[in-house]
Order: sequence, then C-alpha cells, then structure tokens
Amino acid sequence: MNFIKKITHSHSEQDEEFFLLMKKILGYRPRNLEFYKEAFTHSSLKKTNKNGHPINYERLEFLGDAVLGSVIANYLFKKMPNADEGTLTQMRSKIVSREHLNELGKDLELKKFVDSTIPNQNFGDNIYGNLFEAFIGAIHLDKGYSFCEKFIYRNVIEPYVDIEKLEGKITSYKSLLIEWCQKNKKKIKYQVYEDTGNDVLKHFSVKLFIDNEMVSKGRATSKKKAEEIASKRAFYKLQHLIEQ
Amino acid sequence: MNFIKKITHSHSEQDEEFFLLMKKILGYRPRNLEFYKEAFTHSSLKKTNKNGHPINYERLEFLGDAVLGSVIANYLFKKMPNADEGTLTQMRSKIVSREHLNELGKDLELKKFVDSTIPNQNFGDNIYGNLFEAFIGAIHLDKGYSFCEKFIYRNVIEPYVDIEKLEGKITSYKSLLIEWCQKNKKKIKYQVYEDTGNDVLKHFSVKLFIDNEMVSKGRATSKKKAEEIASKRAFYKLQHLIEQ
Repeated sequence: MNFIKKITHSHSEQDEEFFLLMKKILGYRPRNLEFYKEAFTHSSLKKTNKNGHPINYERLEFLGDAVLGSVIANYLFKKMPNADEGTLTQMRSKIVSREHLNELGKDLELKKFVDSTIPNQNFGDNIYGNLFEAFIGAIHLDKGYSFCEKFIYRNVIEPYVDIEKLEGKITSYKSLLIEWCQKNKKKIKYQVYEDTGNDVLKHFSVKLFIDNEMVSKGRATSKKKAEEIASKRAFYKLQHLIEQ
Repeated sequence: MNFIKKITHSHSEQDEEFFLLMKKILGYRPRNLEFYKEAFTHSSLKKTNKNGHPINYERLEFLGDAVLGSVIANYLFKKMPNADEGTLTQMRSKIVSREHLNELGKDLELKKFVDSTIPNQNFGDNIYGNLFEAFIGAIHLDKGYSFCEKFIYRNVIEPYVDIEKLEGKITSYKSLLIEWCQKNKKKIKYQVYEDTGNDVLKHFSVKLFIDNEMVSKGRATSKKKAEEIASKRAFYKLQHLIEQ
C-alpha cells in the first residue's frame, strides 16, 4: 500500500510542477493538462492509446501548424491592406518558416519539457519548431481558437513579426537609430541589465537613452533582442523626426 | 438631380438584391456587404482602392484557404483519434483539393455572382474553388472564426466529407446497398423528384425504399448526390444488419 501511495503521490507532484510551469508560460491556468503532456511526448517513448495507436506530439503539430497559419493569414490580411495574394503568401512563409519557428520554440525553452528516451542534446534543431507547433495545437484544444489567437499575438506577432523587416525595408532598427544619431549629432546609449523576475526564462531588460533622455524600453530573452525591441519602439516614437 | 437619384436608387436596389441572395446562401444576414462584394470581384475589372492597389477576390482567397485549412485540420484531429500526422495531412489534402473545392463552388453556384469583364463561360474550372475560398474569407471577416467554422461544417463537412470514402474503404454507398439487397433478396427503390423549394439552387429530393418501406431520405443539388446521401443514411441505419 505504501508503495502505491508513493507512486500516486510522486505522480501528482510531478503533475503539479508541470501545471505550474505551463501556467507560467501560458499566462493562464491550463484546463486539461493531458493536451500539454501530449504536446511534449516524443515518439521515441513509443506511448500508445487504448487502441494501440501511437501517442506523441506529431498529431498536435499538424493541428498547431494549421491554426498558426490561419491566425497569421488573418493578421497579414488586415495589417497589409495593399498587398496582393502573392505578397501575403510570401510574408506568411517567412513568418512560419522552420527557422523562425525553431527560434520561437527556443525562446520559450520548450525542449526542457520533452518526455523522450533520447538525450536532450541529441535532438535536431527542428525539434524546437515542432514543439512550438504542437504547443499551439494543445492550446487550441484546451482553450479554443480566440484564446489561441491571443497567445500567438502575444508570443509570436508582437515580439517577433515586423512587416518592415520582413519586407526587407529595415534590417535592424538598432543600426538605423545609431546611424540617425550620428548624422544628427545625438548621443545614444543602451543600458542593459539581466532580469529574471518571476519568469522561468532569463530575460534582459534594456533602456534606450538619446541625449541622456530615456526614449524607450525593451525586454527579451537575449540582450540583442531586447536592444532591437527598444530601438524599434524608439524608431516609431521618433519617426516624424527620422523620416524628415 | 433626377439622374443622380436614378443611379443611387438603382445601386441600392442592386445591393438589396445581392444582400438577399447572400442571406439565402449564408443562412444569416450579412453584416458588411463589402466583404462579399470583394469576394466576387474578378481581377479583370481592374478595380483599385484609394491607394491605387488592386481590389479583387484574390486576397480573400488567401485568407479563406487558411481558415478552411484550420477548420478541416481541427475536424480531422477530433474525428480520427487514431490517425497519425501523415494520414491527417493526406486526408486534409483530399478535402481541400482543387477538384473538391471546385465542386463546392459549383454547388453553391457562386460563379453567377462574379463581377468581371470576362464572359461567364470563359472562366476556367478553378474559378469555382477560388470563389469558394474567397467566400469563406469574406465570412471570416464579416462574422469571425466560430461562425465561419459553422458554415464550413454545414456546407463542406456534413454534406461532402466522408472519412470512410476518403480512406478508400467505401467508394459508393449506393452500390454497397444495392449489392447487399441483391445478396439478401431485398427490393431496393429510389424515388427521386426535383424540388426547388424556396432555394436559389435547384435541388433533388430522394426517398429510399427497401422492401417497400421508406428507410431514408436525401436532398442535394444533383440526383446522384441525393441518392448517395440517402444511401449513406440507410447504410448507417442498417449497419448492424449489413456488417453481420
């Protein structure tokens, strides 16, 4: 009996821990933890359902890919009212490219949740993007389309999607801003500090000063990204001056 | 003044007619008619927006394709709990194939709404599928995802999607039923009559009798489809006998 109790106990403790980690990443309480568990179950475990069919994250990857495609299409349709179908298709391909999805999965550090028989470092780089898609699929099952759309806005579109950059018009807001400051004899300074806060992931915060006046702030999982976010915000704040 | 009045009048009359036709197909009152107008604007008209960029249904086609893909993915995920990612992808490709979408567009007779400089009969067959996707895009903009999902269920999934058929297990419920009746010495009869009702489209209704007893009914835009729908219903009703 003691043995059974121990198993049950350790199992629910594990669930409790997973629940809290998911809640932190999601920003809400997951309703059905099973969906998220499936999103992190690797095929190497050879888990099966009651009919003997495999359970792993690949089915959720299929679902997440489709939902992500739909949300991004809708965003681009509204954001780019003058773009034709070809441009919209191209822009979406860039946003949901394997490379981009891998980056998103890396930033959310999804790999550490994977349940697998393969040592963590032996996964290829694509595991990040695959997990990210499966995770989106799980959110969709757990909370529905609108909720999932909000998650994608908060975690994909707002921090990472930049139409001007994707169109190749601007490659770096930071260099653009530095150049403009040099030309206009202004002093630019980035003040960066590591900031873990209550997050699972390490974050960097940055304040951007022009002529000793704070213009904007940025926060991301790398110093470079935080600087770029702050630069972009400063760019939009100063746009009327920069584009003169 | 009279001239202007005439134009305004004839324009709003035309809108009123279009509104009623859309309402009939959609099963609800369209909120913003402009979306539906765009869904039927062919590029040959060379219409442009205030920035000089083309207005035609191609942008909406991009949106509708993505929404349709997401709704079908979600349907298949739930309907086929044992299918792996590859099978799900294959099934979705079959459902949203150009051929299948053309058929859907044909059944809704969408071509007759097209605003174009090209004579109606000179469009290729793909116009049906393209219009169908653009129409889905317009519904999504007008009423949102959940509403659009319901429309797709009612107009695509329920009448046309048949997992058993798509899996190649059953190719025709009618032949399956006829064969079973022959083997079991039962008399099968299809009673078909044309039935326009209040619909824009011509419909056929069919009653299916086995040994002079009505077993099921079907209704569709062709005799063949109505018979197949009735046969499918009869199949599920008699399944416990047929599969013995």
